[in-house]
Amino acid sequence: MTDQSLSEATTMTNKVKVACVQMHPRIGDKAANLANSIASIERAAKAGAQLVVLPELASTGYVFESREEVFSLAEEVPAGPTCQAWLQVAQRLGVTLVAGIAEREGDSLYNAAVVIGPTGYIGTFRKVHLWNAENLFFEPGNLGFPVFKTPLGRIGVAICYDIWFPETFRLAALKGADIVCVPTNWVPIPGQAPGREAMATVLAMAGAHCNSLFIACADRVGIERGQPFEGQSVIVGCTGWPVAGPASRDDEEILLAEVDLGEARRSRNWNAFNQVLRDRRTDVYDEMLGSKDAPGWY
Amino acid sequence: MTDQSLSEATTMTNKVKVACVQMHPRIGDKAANLANSIASIERAAKAGAQLVVLPELASTGYVFESREEVFSLAEEVPAGPTCQAWLQVAQRLGVTLVAGIAEREGDSLYNAAVVIGPTGYIGTFRKVHLWNAENLFFEPGNLGFPVFKTPLGRIGVAICYDIWFPETFRLAALKGADIVCVPTNWVPIPGQAPGREAMATVLAMAGAHCNSLFIACADRVGIERGQPFEGQSVIVGCTGWPVAGPASRDDEEILLAEVDLGEARRSRNWNAFNQVLRDRRTDVYDEMLGSKDAPGWY
Repeated sequence: MTDQSLSEATTMTNKVKVACVQMHPRIGDKAANLANSIASIERAAKAGAQLVVLPELASTGYVFESREEVFSLAEEVPAGPTCQAWLQVAQRLGVTLVAGIAEREGDSLYNAAVVIGPTGYIGTFRKVHLWNAENLFFEPGNLGFPVFKTPLGRIGVAICYDIWFPETFRLAALKGADIVCVPTNWVPIPGQAPGREAMATVLAMAGAHCNSLFIACADRVGIERGQPFEGQSVIVGCTGWPVAGPASRDDEEILLAEVDLGEARRSRNWNAFNQVLRDRRTDVYDEMLGSKDAPGWY
Repeated sequence: MTDQSLSEATTMTNKVKVACVQMHPRIGDKAANLANSIASIERAAKAGAQLVVLPELASTGYVFESREEVFSLAEEVPAGPTCQAWLQVAQRLGVTLVAGIAEREGDSLYNAAVVIGPTGYIGTFRKVHLWNAENLFFEPGNLGFPVFKTPLGRIGVAICYDIWFPETFRLAALKGADIVCVPTNWVPIPGQAPGREAMATVLAMAGAHCNSLFIACADRVGIERGQPFEGQSVIVGCTGWPVAGPASRDDEEILLAEVDLGEARRSRNWNAFNQVLRDRRTDVYDEMLGSKDAPGWY
């Protein structure tokens, strides 16, 4: 490789316009939610978006009253009607989607996100860390933290409470993710200080900075069966600061940011000595972090 | 155990007044730095502080010009004169100290922090992740992430760049830390947005929140051999929001906060299903997080 081509390699850009759809799903009204999601995807595509993130459980709403209710709303992925509709819109508009959906596989239910490209189904993520009453409805995700190679770049996925675990972004980064898409339904959390930035924003900023990757969080808004949601969708750059948002707490809106996904990989070298992922001291970490035998008394 | 005593156990408090000394060490002037540190510890103790954190390399300054210079300034821990002086002041004032120091052990140099209680030496932490030119002077820390059991509570330690690795706070929490003391010398970092909160604050907030522990960061101020430092020392509560600071960028000052260290353990149960440390999915993590065999291509 000549110096010239080396130089080209380091200045090559990989620009992707990312959209986070902050929407208000209505519990149980799949037709309305699908229509809303498609209208939002169309608006985002019209604004140039190539990668569109929808909220967690965008097709069904979140506050279920019974396991039977979830069964009646959940669908096979990608065979079910919601995914099929999203597949059509992704093909028609040439966009890649990451969208939250209640997934049914046999008698198992998952809080899932489907990844769909212009040429078809790419893969599924199943929420790893279940929050509160989700434990009554869903099985814990059993697909780990996949990173999907797409023409736009390498895409990791996490859902809501997953980002409370720094392991989530770390594993995505170690598996090569350039961006982690986060369909979410953030609810008020213990200790949230009034008037302060959302802790979810803080977590996304820290995760992006420490791992040198982009993070695109699409939250829902509205109050459902008494449960308020936090909005404040945000797209965080790979240095850790928001490049779009946080959005409002209450309104449906579409966040847009054009990012160079190549920066995620290029900007990991911070100086002559430090590369933020290679500096990990696995010789020190290996005792407990991934161990099933770690003490459970904490 | 009766219901009455159970109730007492859950309402018992463990209040500790924590001080972070934001000071301006002078490179190579150990006598002046020691005097400054002792005067600061005295002021903190007068204000009621029981746990006092000093910056990284508080006794020597940070921007070394040669390995020889560090050798001439480094001391044995705790046999050297600086530790001995700190031992005296801790005993005299009845305080516990966590203080950054250049440690020499044989021909090895460490960027270390010594933990000293009113009754004597408690232990040493050696910086695990070395930043930039530190790699020319110091050996990487080889003592892991110890958590020291003290009468005040369980104390973990990290130094500066260590907190860029979420593994640091995670390991401290898994080992039972109630508070992590962070002697630090924060420098401007890539991507820091002007006018935005310091990324160091964001990292401390995320680490405290995700792990339900307190974090006390004592930074230095001043410009040394052309290198500016960031100040903005901060004490973060176990829900993730600052309880004191961030301090100024430029001035010597003492941050004080009375915290109930028991809250770190008590507040980990967030609802009927979720306990923030026990919710870790080690069945999913164990593949890469602590593995020396993780791919090195990222």
